[in-house]
Amino acid sequence: MKKFFTDPAAIAEHLLPRGFQYSSVACGLKKSRKHDLALITSDAPAVAAAVFTTNRVQAAPVLVSREHLEKSQGLARAIVANSGNANCATGAQGIEAARATTAAVASELGCPQDQVQVCSTGVIGIPLDASKLTSAVPSLVSNLESTTDAYHSAARAIMTTDARPKWSAATCRVDGKEVRVLGCAKGAGMIHPQMATMLAFVVTDAALSWPVAARLLREVAGRTFNSVTVDGDTSTNDTLILLANGAAGAPPIRRAGPDLERFTRALESVCRDLALMIVCDGEGASRVAEIEVRGVASDAVAAVIARTIAGSPLVKTAFTGADPNWGRILAAAGRTPLPRGVAFDPASAEIRLAGITVCRRGQSHPFDEAAAHHKMLERHVPVIVDFKSGPGRATVWTSDFTTEYVRINSSYRS
Amino acid sequence: MKKFFTDPAAIAEHLLPRGFQYSSVACGLKKSRKHDLALITSDAPAVAAAVFTTNRVQAAPVLVSREHLEKSQGLARAIVANSGNANCATGAQGIEAARATTAAVASELGCPQDQVQVCSTGVIGIPLDASKLTSAVPSLVSNLESTTDAYHSAARAIMTTDARPKWSAATCRVDGKEVRVLGCAKGAGMIHPQMATMLAFVVTDAALSWPVAARLLREVAGRTFNSVTVDGDTSTNDTLILLANGAAGAPPIRRAGPDLERFTRALESVCRDLALMIVCDGEGASRVAEIEVRGVASDAVAAVIARTIAGSPLVKTAFTGADPNWGRILAAAGRTPLPRGVAFDPASAEIRLAGITVCRRGQSHPFDEAAAHHKMLERHVPVIVDFKSGPGRATVWTSDFTTEYVRINSSYRS
Repeated sequence: MKKFFTDPAAIAEHLLPRGFQYSSVACGLKKSRKHDLALITSDAPAVAAAVFTTNRVQAAPVLVSREHLEKSQGLARAIVANSGNANCATGAQGIEAARATTAAVASELGCPQDQVQVCSTGVIGIPLDASKLTSAVPSLVSNLESTTDAYHSAARAIMTTDARPKWSAATCRVDGKEVRVLGCAKGAGMIHPQMATMLAFVVTDAALSWPVAARLLREVAGRTFNSVTVDGDTSTNDTLILLANGAAGAPPIRRAGPDLERFTRALESVCRDLALMIVCDGEGASRVAEIEVRGVASDAVAAVIARTIAGSPLVKTAFTGADPNWGRILAAAGRTPLPRGVAFDPASAEIRLAGITVCRRGQSHPFDEAAAHHKMLERHVPVIVDFKSGPGRATVWTSDFTTEYVRINSSYRS
Repeated sequence: MKKFFTDPAAIAEHLLPRGFQYSSVACGLKKSRKHDLALITSDAPAVAAAVFTTNRVQAAPVLVSREHLEKSQGLARAIVANSGNANCATGAQGIEAARATTAAVASELGCPQDQVQVCSTGVIGIPLDASKLTSAVPSLVSNLESTTDAYHSAARAIMTTDARPKWSAATCRVDGKEVRVLGCAKGAGMIHPQMATMLAFVVTDAALSWPVAARLLREVAGRTFNSVTVDGDTSTNDTLILLANGAAGAPPIRRAGPDLERFTRALESVCRDLALMIVCDGEGASRVAEIEVRGVASDAVAAVIARTIAGSPLVKTAFTGADPNWGRILAAAGRTPLPRGVAFDPASAEIRLAGITVCRRGQSHPFDEAAAHHKMLERHVPVIVDFKSGPGRATVWTSDFTTEYVRINSSYRS
């Protein structure tokens, strides 16, 4: 949690995983002429696992990347990602544009086309001019470098409404050898559980078997990216990709054990950092509330309640005003959609806001309003909602809803 | 739809249903000293039906009113309603306060206590001082009048963040005799399908059997109050009550037929007017979008998709900016939570915004952006999303999300 609200500092050179290179260029999609095309490559084919959006409307690059992962049997040499256009709701032409981009990268790298993952982010429904991307690929590939500068540029090239780039690194030991985990992400709007990030790319020089990589990524995504919300809108392009190339020279992690535990902690630390950076950078956000629900039947039930609270506009605007209006939190919990037969008793609810107990047994508990308001002015406000009747618990992070969010989104395309 | 955006004009005297009286006073709950306690009475016991919030957190007056309806076997003489305090999350003391209020009204009217319905609206979690209400009841009852002025005052007394009072009237013939339907409502925030109104009271001098009244109210509520959304937050106090006292002298409506059809249209017209007034008066709203979903398996599926679109902050802020950003509409439809096995094909979607086709077969359809923007500046923007593969259709009305919404809700209690 140390990086929660610090701007991401430069990544130290020794934290770069071995055997990866990075690059970015301006290919002309962003009118600002900022870099809008990024490339991450592994020198050797890497084990690749991915988690994609659950939205029924899926962008062309999501369809192509998923197909590539199947064809390549979980191997990838590269991730190519553009900002400035989501290439979504673009029909057969959009699929062709995504394929053409991967073909150009594969040709320059000399690898099978299905070993190239492709991602897009930006406005939905505008045809993507593939020639802008394909003509930029040769210089994109010739610029590849294994330096922190190249990494920082690539992480910036995938930004859209993000206020700042997001990256995080961790290391751990596998069989006594140091391995490195490095991730970057973009996302500030259309952020909601069920692949919450829009785009996140994590590379490691650890070696993982494909089944371990796939399962691990899904589990970690559930506790990190899928536990943040900005506006309840699940994007059509959400993609999280993990590349593991084994270049550190440690033996492959194939099963449960201390090595997998250490690696899981490192991966989860990077993914949580990135997820929290996304919510901190939520469009217009002035603070982040950490909503922990406890004392219900199961973790899954706790997660649904926590997400309902975290998604409530009335709760989010109360945080904007640093208003200890716990009634809105209880009311949001009460309208949580749960399967028949699953219940919890609002009359047993205890609510703590920024460490102050404001509600006990479902009713007001006397507290110092001014002190609570003052503590809620912090950038990070922990909230605990405890229904006192079961072992289930879950945490969801949510940004507040400010006039700036409305300003950003009511003028996005104009 | 004629009253969609007009401020409600004064109700003509001849539209007042026979045999009802109205009153309001300032009992001291609102710091502004405005009227905050309203009473509606029927001279004779009326058939009473009600629809209450589906939120698991239910305010004390909701619990007491439901209990009273059961005990009285669907009869009521009065509705007493306060603003300024929701009497919710107030425990046993809250229940006592609600009971004490109904006891005071019953005593003054000389009727059984269970023939008094009680409602509250305002802040959640603050103990309600029942003595303020009970000591005001004698003057409340002595002020009762069957005049439009008294009705207007009562409708104002239940307002909280509402910018304006809301009422609507209709008449129809039952067995050749004219009957009158008159309703008022309050609601501007915490508005979402599943009893969307917070409070609405409809009185009629038609005679209805209780089973007809109960079924009719539920059906009409589904198509009206439960089809509007402001912020996705279902209130803890939502209550819609219908009183039918038969004072017009028409015979009771007991079964299907032309009389029931005419009365249904009159009731639905009043309820739709009130529901649309609520969404037009949505906190900070600058315009209302009418989201019609067509061409899916069933009306129920269409309703869930329409509600998901209508609840999307990104869609709502696009309307704020009059931005024809149909990609957000399609993306919101795509994340609709539907039961397993229920599907629709985004690739067949056609979207019309303010009468302009902007998307065909799930892709961009060329249109004049400036013209679309201009048409979206209207206060009422119709949207049709057609998936072209089934008979299901539903309409949901939603307000836009403005900086004013955030301002209102981030400073509500301060």
